[in-house]
Amino acid sequence: MKIIAATNNKGKLKEMRAIFGDLATVVSLSDMGVNIDVVEDGDTFLHNARKKAREIQAVTGGIVFADDSGLTVDALNGAPGVYSARFAGENATDEENVEKLLLQLKDKEDRTGHFVCTIVLLKEDGTEYVAEGACSGVIAEEPHGENGFGYDPVFYIPELGKTMAELSPEEKNQISHRRKALDKIKEFLK
Amino acid sequence: MKIIAATNNKGKLKEMRAIFGDLATVVSLSDMGVNIDVVEDGDTFLHNARKKAREIQAVTGGIVFADDSGLTVDALNGAPGVYSARFAGENATDEENVEKLLLQLKDKEDRTGHFVCTIVLLKEDGTEYVAEGACSGVIAEEPHGENGFGYDPVFYIPELGKTMAELSPEEKNQISHRRKALDKIKEFLK
Repeated sequence: MKIIAATNNKGKLKEMRAIFGDLATVVSLSDMGVNIDVVEDGDTFLHNARKKAREIQAVTGGIVFADDSGLTVDALNGAPGVYSARFAGENATDEENVEKLLLQLKDKEDRTGHFVCTIVLLKEDGTEYVAEGACSGVIAEEPHGENGFGYDPVFYIPELGKTMAELSPEEKNQISHRRKALDKIKEFLK
Repeated sequence: MKIIAATNNKGKLKEMRAIFGDLATVVSLSDMGVNIDVVEDGDTFLHNARKKAREIQAVTGGIVFADDSGLTVDALNGAPGVYSARFAGENATDEENVEKLLLQLKDKEDRTGHFVCTIVLLKEDGTEYVAEGACSGVIAEEPHGENGFGYDPVFYIPELGKTMAELSPEEKNQISHRRKALDKIKEFLK
C-alpha cells in the first residue's frame, strides 16, 4: 500500500516510515512532484487535517495521510489549540509563541497542557480513518532543552522529569501525541 | 434504521427527527432505558463526541449518534472551545460564561467567533461517520434576544442582523453549526 503523506517534513516522514514498517510505503509531497500549500484556517484539528487530506487527494489521487496538531492549555480554555503556530501573530517565531504562553500563564495555578494530534487517513473511495492522540504535561516556568520545536522547551513531562525538548528524537517519538495517533492508525491498517 | 442519540434533549431530538425524516428512526437514551453520564473531558470536540458514542454503544449496542459543540473565538485563540459550558467554572451558568467572554473581549478589535459542532455516528461494526459544521458570527457587546441558550444572546450573525437568541428555533435550525453537521451526516446515510 502506498500512502501519500501531506508533508515534506523529514522528521515526520521518518517517524511514519519507522512506525508503519512493511505495512505501507510512505511518500512525501515532493516525491509526488506536488507543491500545494493548504491554508490551515479551520476551527479544529480535525477540520485542518481533513481539509489538507482532501485538497491533496484532489491533486494526487491515492491514499492520503494528513495531520494537524497543537498545544491545548487547560487554564487558557484550550488555547492556543489550532492557533499554536501563530499564537503571537501570523509570522511568530517559536520563541515569541512560547513567550506569550508564559506571560498568559504567569498568575495561573493550573499549568496543565496537552499536545494533541489529529490524523486523517483518506482512502481512494473517500472513506477515512480518523485518529487522535494526546500527551499531557505541565507548562514549565521557563524553557529547558534544545531538541524538538514549538512549545517543546516548556512542555514538562512529570513522569520523565524532563521537558519535551530535553528528550532525544527517539525518546520523543515513543511518547508523543503524534505517536499515539499514528499507533491507532496503524491498528486500523492492520 | 434505528439511531440511538446520545441525548435526552428534546430540542436536539426534534431537530434530528426533522432532518433525518424517513431515513432513520431516532431514539433517545431514555427511550432505551439507559442512564449514562459520560464525562466530556476531552481536548477536542471529536474526542468528546467519540467518547460519548463509544461509551453508550458499549451499553446499548446498535448505531449511536453523539455530538459535541461549542464556541471558538479567534481573538482568544479558539477558547472557550471544549470548555464552552464551563468557561466561568465547573458549575457556571450561561450568564456567567457570557459575562466572562465579554470581559475577555473588552479591548479586542476582532470579535469573530464560530459555533462548531462535531458529530460521530458510530455503526455496529465500529466504523464511524464524522462530520463537522460551523457557523460564523461576531460576539456582540451585550446580550440580545431570549431564545436559544449558552452564548446565543451574544452571537451576532451579520447576514441576518440578529443574534442567535433573536432567531426562532426554526430559523436557528436552518443555519446552525449543528444543522450543517447533521446535513453532512444525512448525506452519508443516503
